[in-house]
Amino acid sequence: MFDGWCRYFEHDAATTGTKMRFSVYLPPQHEGWQVPVLYWLSGLTCTEENFMIKAGAQRYAAEHGVMLVVPDTSPRNTGIPGEDTRYDMGSGAGFYLNATNEPWSKHYQMYDYVADELPKIIEEQFNARPDAASIFGHSMGGHGALVLSLRNPGKYRSVSAFSPICAPTQVAWGQQAFKNYLGEDTSTWSQYDAVALLEKAENPLPMLVDQGMDDEFLKEGLRVDLLEEVCQRRGHQLNLRMRPKYDHSYYFVASFIGEHISYHAGHLTQGGSEGV
Amino acid sequence: MFDGWCRYFEHDAATTGTKMRFSVYLPPQHEGWQVPVLYWLSGLTCTEENFMIKAGAQRYAAEHGVMLVVPDTSPRNTGIPGEDTRYDMGSGAGFYLNATNEPWSKHYQMYDYVADELPKIIEEQFNARPDAASIFGHSMGGHGALVLSLRNPGKYRSVSAFSPICAPTQVAWGQQAFKNYLGEDTSTWSQYDAVALLEKAENPLPMLVDQGMDDEFLKEGLRVDLLEEVCQRRGHQLNLRMRPKYDHSYYFVASFIGEHISYHAGHLTQGGSEGV
Repeated sequence: MFDGWCRYFEHDAATTGTKMRFSVYLPPQHEGWQVPVLYWLSGLTCTEENFMIKAGAQRYAAEHGVMLVVPDTSPRNTGIPGEDTRYDMGSGAGFYLNATNEPWSKHYQMYDYVADELPKIIEEQFNARPDAASIFGHSMGGHGALVLSLRNPGKYRSVSAFSPICAPTQVAWGQQAFKNYLGEDTSTWSQYDAVALLEKAENPLPMLVDQGMDDEFLKEGLRVDLLEEVCQRRGHQLNLRMRPKYDHSYYFVASFIGEHISYHAGHLTQGGSEGV
Repeated sequence: MFDGWCRYFEHDAATTGTKMRFSVYLPPQHEGWQVPVLYWLSGLTCTEENFMIKAGAQRYAAEHGVMLVVPDTSPRNTGIPGEDTRYDMGSGAGFYLNATNEPWSKHYQMYDYVADELPKIIEEQFNARPDAASIFGHSMGGHGALVLSLRNPGKYRSVSAFSPICAPTQVAWGQQAFKNYLGEDTSTWSQYDAVALLEKAENPLPMLVDQGMDDEFLKEGLRVDLLEEVCQRRGHQLNLRMRPKYDHSYYFVASFIGEHISYHAGHLTQGGSEGV
């Protein structure tokens, strides 16, 4: 695509103890040069494929010379009873956390997979710049991107989100998932809640967030109002763009993906890239 | 999307005697102004949805102020025995022709649907410029676009194709489909074969064609070499771009869709648009 390569991979993941899949877009600049990496985290029900097919991101990644990396949203085929029965639990719904509760804890270690295992593979095997990574995502993946950036200062140069689940501990689908993955003790939940983390954060990365105003999940499931409130109160930098008439779909993501990639490229392409 | 609207419709079609579906992208300029129309014809197995999801075309249509119209690739649910059993016959495989053979002839009238019925609806109900239409497509839809433009001089301002089935009467999937749709008398087949039509055409529209060189259907199913040969011999204008390393997929289409839409926009936006 666009003189680069869109490729799909599967590998044995140590963190999850399962096969894991991810997709990459290698921009034309990757031939002979280390390229910066932009991680995309997808939403509920998605695989590593949806973003690559629907977001129209490759054109912008090619323009800016940025590599895209898109993990699947959960382990699959773990044998856990009921893993495929709900759209918001189990397969396609890993919530980018490390489960501590049985039966999920054995495989559902998406936080470690995305924070550590996957970047290591990308840096070692794909000619990626080890000093230049950013992260963004959609819905559950917007939650993941915000949480990963808040808990790993210095790991990412920039963060952004489309329609993120901002406060999973305060909304039904998050509470239901966290209870299953993390157990009844709610004191452990806040480490995976962007609004809760921002309550205590010092100097978090500025956040770029786009939110459709006709998004059917806005009021009950996403709660960007809580994100805005904590950022205003604590003085955190949030560039929140409320988009009239847009919904929760990839049509919305596609409409503004170019602006997000430009934003990240502005941070990622500072500093020299080494020829290899 | 991109400040315009991506919309899906279903209606009772007179030509096919069935419900037919199509999608449109209305660019932001459609509010208050008549916009030119660019018809996209999709390939085998597609519905009206694939292009809208996968091609990344809306961004360019918004930039140029061009409306996109994408019909489904066949009637559906006709009750014809076996209509859903093959990927290259029946549902998803209308081949943009008027079937004359039983049992297909009653419903499979895609040529008339795309050439006449659909444009009438678009012009009457979508604030489209009646004097500015162009057409393009992919694979079976590239065949459709070339055939429709060749048989309807003056109807379209420009035509282009990705990986078109150039000579369906000379390749297996075309012969199989035409035998079923048109009957054993092969003399009627050439009216739906771009290479055969170009043999006799006088002053056809210039053709812009992109073809991936790693396309798995190139040698057996598409035969762009025959298109090139007849155009060279007859002196028809063909801008054929052979693209190394690209395959037959929408990843390929997405990579060059912007160039095609710019090409059509150059023809479509000549002449004044009227405020309404």
